[in-house]
Parts: sequence; structure tokens; C-alpha cells
Amino acid sequence: LLAFRDRLAAAIQAKRSAVCVGLDPRFAQLPPRFAQSLPPAWALLEFNKYVIDQVADVCPIVKPQSAFYELYGADGIASLVETIRYAKSKGLLVLLDVKRGDMGATSEAYAEAYLSPDGPFDVDALTINGYQGTDCLQPFLDQAREHAKGVFVLVKTSNPSSVEIQDLRTETGEPVFEAMAKLVDRWDCEAVVGATYPREAARARELMPRATILAPGYGAQGATAQDVVPSFRADGSGAIVNNSRGIIFAADARQAAIDMRDAINAALGA
Amino acid sequence: LLAFRDRLAAAIQAKRSAVCVGLDPRFAQLPPRFAQSLPPAWALLEFNKYVIDQVADVCPIVKPQSAFYELYGADGIASLVETIRYAKSKGLLVLLDVKRGDMGATSEAYAEAYLSPDGPFDVDALTINGYQGTDCLQPFLDQAREHAKGVFVLVKTSNPSSVEIQDLRTETGEPVFEAMAKLVDRWDCEAVVGATYPREAARARELMPRATILAPGYGAQGATAQDVVPSFRADGSGAIVNNSRGIIFAADARQAAIDMRDAINAALGA
Repeated sequence: LLAFRDRLAAAIQAKRSAVCVGLDPRFAQLPPRFAQSLPPAWALLEFNKYVIDQVADVCPIVKPQSAFYELYGADGIASLVETIRYAKSKGLLVLLDVKRGDMGATSEAYAEAYLSPDGPFDVDALTINGYQGTDCLQPFLDQAREHAKGVFVLVKTSNPSSVEIQDLRTETGEPVFEAMAKLVDRWDCEAVVGATYPREAARARELMPRATILAPGYGAQGATAQDVVPSFRADGSGAIVNNSRGIIFAADARQAAIDMRDAINAALGA
Repeated sequence: LLAFRDRLAAAIQAKRSAVCVGLDPRFAQLPPRFAQSLPPAWALLEFNKYVIDQVADVCPIVKPQSAFYELYGADGIASLVETIRYAKSKGLLVLLDVKRGDMGATSEAYAEAYLSPDGPFDVDALTINGYQGTDCLQPFLDQAREHAKGVFVLVKTSNPSSVEIQDLRTETGEPVFEAMAKLVDRWDCEAVVGATYPREAARARELMPRATILAPGYGAQGATAQDVVPSFRADGSGAIVNNSRGIIFAADARQAAIDMRDAINAALGA
């Protein structure tokens, strides 16, 4: 089995698209035809299937955000599991956004739950919070290596308050997020770097030459196609750009994904 | 409704116990009578009910670790929800260990899912990872204030690798975890400080005079009753000490909780 990083790169090449569609549905915002007759958790699933059908050939990967499913308890998790299954059946990679992070047996349980083919979720990749360090990451890295899965560690997040801890300057002069980027390079995993911080993204790109960067913040959060360029390598590889609301709640989800794909390709000169 | 912090303090006083029992069951380690006939997720629930009955009058609070339930998908979440309900019915406070952290609408969804009385979990308190800063925390703080719930932010975790990011010295000379402790004091919430780092706990205690400290690391991870003393205020208030395996898998869970309660009270001179 090809490593996750290579599978993702091949899918990006094949679809000429670095777009990651964020499956962040909210019941109150669903078009009426989905929200009318079903319980919320199942309305989310039907809506996701519609979005997946729209975007399956114009993006390599989708990213469900676990919070919107956890909100409906056990039913929400069942809906998430079916969403993952459906996306995979349409040839999409699935990156589940859970930002988990713990230690020892707890990290082992999370890694088994989400990355093992024997677990209930069996996604291709996971987001992880690395604040607890290497022994927090190790069980995820082990499962990822064994099953050719991916792990994306938060390096510099796209929100305004990310400056409070992540930009703290350490005594060597480097900010905390650069120390995290160096750990990511040591772990040889993937990373999350907000597209809303292009200067920091350029620095993170340098520090983690092997990592695939997930760049959130495009669209609703304000980042443009030009802003995501520093997350890519000079040859246009090495990053995916997430957009959630700007695609799934667009009047035409498919056209919104195509427009985003083309805008990024144009900015990359591809 | 009394604030969470005050409800917890009252329960600690009433039971003369600062013991937090970690409900971290693993199917493979359950006594045979629980593991024989039930599907794993429901065996965990039956085991938890047994443990809760054993410890309900000798500890003020229990802490289920979400990872061990997520491992069983939707069934695991249903089992977790029932565990929470049962613990509350026995007069226990419930701190759910999820270490979530995200931003904007995602943090809002998590906060609603776990802390709102209208959500599926409705626990008394939650653990949170603060690496993303204030706008990550705000939705949790808002729900907590509205519904008299608690939020415990990771300041210094009990694992060996916590030194990698949390002990990085910033240019002002203070380590990252002290910067996080100052944020916790600004947010006026509770904190997680590993009992395996007594010196750091003493410093965190100083920086967050109002916070209740959850001190994990007692027992299996090596911290002793003496090691947890710095997490408490001089008057013996302000902390709870977690033990999971050392209680739930003890031959006599109730006696193990009593012994731990007494050892901590003795170390505090209470």
C-alpha cells in the first residue's frame, strides 16, 4: 500500500486540484429539502451525500469536522461513520478533523479508533494537537505507518488568537509554532498551517520540506488564492487548501469547488 | 445555580475527598464477569456502573476518558452517555476528558454538545486544549458561565514529552506552560497540571490562584500523595487528583479510593 502522502499527491495530480472540501454541516443552515423530514443527524448525512456527489471529481479529499456530528451524540457518530463510508465509495480520501491529542493508552485508543482498519472510523488521515509532545504523537504515528494513514499536526492555526501561544518568541528567537514545525519534521508527518498567515506559512514550509500542509482559512476566514501559495513547494506540490462553508453552502457547490480549484492553480501558475 | 467551582468545592468538603476516579475501561482488561456475554461497549457500561457504585460516597467527581468510548463508534458514545447519566444519578459530578479545542463555529458546536443541558452529553465539566488561544476557548467559557459548568485547560501535562513544547523558555524567561497558566487566570477557568511535575505545579498554583487544578499522574504514572500537595492551596483546597487504573482495576476499587483519599488528606495535614 502506498503511503498516505503519496496517495494524496497522486489524487491531487489526477484531479489537478488541491481543494479539500470541509464537511461542516449545520442543521439550521441546511437547504429546506434536507431539513424537512429527517432527524438532524440523518439530515446531515443526506446533505453530505449530495455535496460529495457534487464535488467528487473536482477535489481529492474531504474533511468532515467531528464537532458537528458529536453534537448529535451516538446518532451523530453513526451519521459521521456513514459519511466517511460514502466519501470513500466515491473515490475520495477522508481527513477527519478531530484535533485529538493525549498520552499513552489514551492516544493508543484514539489512534486505533480512527486510523485502524479494525476501528469504527478507518479514515485516511486525522488532525492532531501536538501540545503534549512526542509520546502523545507516537501511537498515531505507529498506526499511520502500519496502515498507510496520515497525521496532520497543528503548527500554526488560522484563527486570530493563535498568536497568543503559537507566536510566543522562545529564548532562541524562534516562535513556538516553529518549534512545533521542527517536531513535525522530526515526526515526518503532515501539518496544519493557516492560510490566513502567509508569512508564517512560508517559514513552516521551509522547516518541514517533506510534510503535506493542510491550509485552512480560505474564503470565509479571508485567505485568498495568493495567500495559499507559500504553503506549496516551488513545484506546486505539497499542500491542500480547505474550504467548508464557501463550498457546501454555495448555491452551486460543484461550481464553487471548480472556481476555487482554478483560482489556486492560476495562483500557482499551473 | 452555584458555579461549577463552588459545587465541586462543596462536594470535596462534604466527602472529605479530593479523589477523581478516572473511568478509563478497556475491554481486554475487564474482569471476566463483565466481558463474557455483552458487546464491548455495553460491557464497559456495566463495569462503569459497578465502579461508580463502589466509589460514589468516597469521591466527589469521576472523569470518563472519551477515547475509550470513541473506540466503539456510535455504540461507544451511547455507552458513554449512559455512564454519564448513571454517575450523575449517584450524586457524582462528571468531568469528561475530551481535550477538545478548535475555533469559531466548531468550538461552539463542541461547547453545545458537551456543556449545554440541551446537548447529548450535558457533563459538569470538560478538558480543553488551549494551544489555539482565547477565541478557541470563548464558546466553552460562554456555555460554562450560562450553565454553571467547568472548563479545565491543559497547562502542564503529566507525560514525559510535555517538556518539548510546554517547557520551552520564552524570551521573557518564563516557560510556555506559565504563559498558558496566565491565560487560564485571565479566562478564570480551571486547569490540568500533572502531579508528576510538583515544582511546575507549585508555580502554576501561584499563577492561577482562583483555578481548581486537576492533577493527573497519581499512582500508575508515579506521582505520590506528597507530589500532589503543591497543586493545593495552603488551606488544602483547590485541587482534585485523578487516578484511573489504580482504582478501577484494583481488586477492591472502593478500598483503593479510600486509601488514596486518606493518603492525600494525610499529606495535606487535614
